[in-house]
Amino acid sequence: MSPVTIDGSTRVYAVFGDPVKQVQTPRLINPLFAAAGHNLVAVPFHVTPASLAQTWGAFRQIDTIAGIGVTVPHKVAAATLCDSLTEAARMVGAVNSIQRRDDGSMHGALFDGAGFVQGLGTCRARLKGAEILLMGAGGAGRAIAHALAAEAPSRIWVLDRDPGSVAFTVDLINRASGVMMAAEAGADAHRATVWINATPMGLRPGDVLPVDPGHLTQDTFVADIASLSRQTELLSRARALGCATNDGNDMLNAQIALIAGFAAGLEAGQPLT
Amino acid sequence: MSPVTIDGSTRVYAVFGDPVKQVQTPRLINPLFAAAGHNLVAVPFHVTPASLAQTWGAFRQIDTIAGIGVTVPHKVAAATLCDSLTEAARMVGAVNSIQRRDDGSMHGALFDGAGFVQGLGTCRARLKGAEILLMGAGGAGRAIAHALAAEAPSRIWVLDRDPGSVAFTVDLINRASGVMMAAEAGADAHRATVWINATPMGLRPGDVLPVDPGHLTQDTFVADIASLSRQTELLSRARALGCATNDGNDMLNAQIALIAGFAAGLEAGQPLT
Repeated sequence: MSPVTIDGSTRVYAVFGDPVKQVQTPRLINPLFAAAGHNLVAVPFHVTPASLAQTWGAFRQIDTIAGIGVTVPHKVAAATLCDSLTEAARMVGAVNSIQRRDDGSMHGALFDGAGFVQGLGTCRARLKGAEILLMGAGGAGRAIAHALAAEAPSRIWVLDRDPGSVAFTVDLINRASGVMMAAEAGADAHRATVWINATPMGLRPGDVLPVDPGHLTQDTFVADIASLSRQTELLSRARALGCATNDGNDMLNAQIALIAGFAAGLEAGQPLT
Repeated sequence: MSPVTIDGSTRVYAVFGDPVKQVQTPRLINPLFAAAGHNLVAVPFHVTPASLAQTWGAFRQIDTIAGIGVTVPHKVAAATLCDSLTEAARMVGAVNSIQRRDDGSMHGALFDGAGFVQGLGTCRARLKGAEILLMGAGGAGRAIAHALAAEAPSRIWVLDRDPGSVAFTVDLINRASGVMMAAEAGADAHRATVWINATPMGLRPGDVLPVDPGHLTQDTFVADIASLSRQTELLSRARALGCATNDGNDMLNAQIALIAGFAAGLEAGQPLT
């Protein structure tokens, strides 16, 4: 962990979670604040769902709070507490970073999707015109779906065990893109040249993947955000074939730079540099 | 400033003030936490009197809050919000450090007085049997008065422009010591061999000191907490005479060690080592 320094003028980016011990944000973001010369520090707070509204109300009154970060299980509830939302946050109905503005208003953003596409690096160009298979239409999948819609793929096939989540996400993509870009994945969805796993399946041996990885070809680009560990069942199969791959760490690091910029007062989407 | 590290398991000692920029606690205490191996960090929050109760209520619900530090103007109001108080806090009617216990209760302490006497170092022994002149019976003066009562001086003369503050402090000392140790300072109070200045007078050129420093002799022991600057009118006069002296920095450093111990869960009065 890189060190940070705190004095009476230090502002706070408060990270709420339940549990909170596992949050990576303080460890990763504080060196970015320090390197950019901001007297700003991310600090974790164990906030339960029952106390979220009260804690939120207290923190928003404190003008040395730069913002609030939220993780599980607060991402949807916190969106309802914000005074304004970015388009991604509004369409997905969730936030993970909230900027406290000088007038005390709380502006919520969701950087999961933007973090995903920015974390792809040079592979981001593979999305344009591609057929994409998106596995998982939960919180992370929806955020990624919204960001994918702006990358001009030809099609996005959405796969999830829950039909309601599929319908929500297909509609989200089509509203965001303005065209009928998305549909529920059919039996031949494995023909997509970009596979994105936004489910937790594949972390443990014996997990059944949403699509048989036997359909992978060496031209498939595979992104798996299932874990910060860089290895999953899907990634190891893809790497064995020589596929280009991308993992949850790339998404996390890209997202942290966006959250750092937002916490430091930049417009949503501007990374701290 | 010494660096600290923050991760998801870090607990918070929240420092409330209005203003808060000037607080020394985070800068001084965080290196003590780190050196003692505690994953605990002091962080400043600008909390106004109007929002103190709400903020307090929210923070006490958060079980990763180790405690709350309060400075001007919250020391008296925060005492009324505590569930229990140390004897010093109860008798003076003020707190500067509050321990959040595992059951969520808030236990308030006041370390100004203990910090003062411990900060005297070897000069502490000069209090026993001495006649002490205490200048200033405001918040700091009262806290020091309470601590002096336990050091077995022969007399404490209390001097303040406000007769109510004098009466409160004389009574405080006499109740704490169980004997008629204290009285209002008379015209010959300058004969005391220990002078303690707990007023802000003497920081600026032209300030009129409560007692004419022309009465100092080289045997007088002089303590002046007026400032963290090590020089005041009284101290410079005393040092010119060759008197033993003590300043606000000594008190502050002793107090920080006591607050650190309390924030780390030790009994009140145990410094963190």
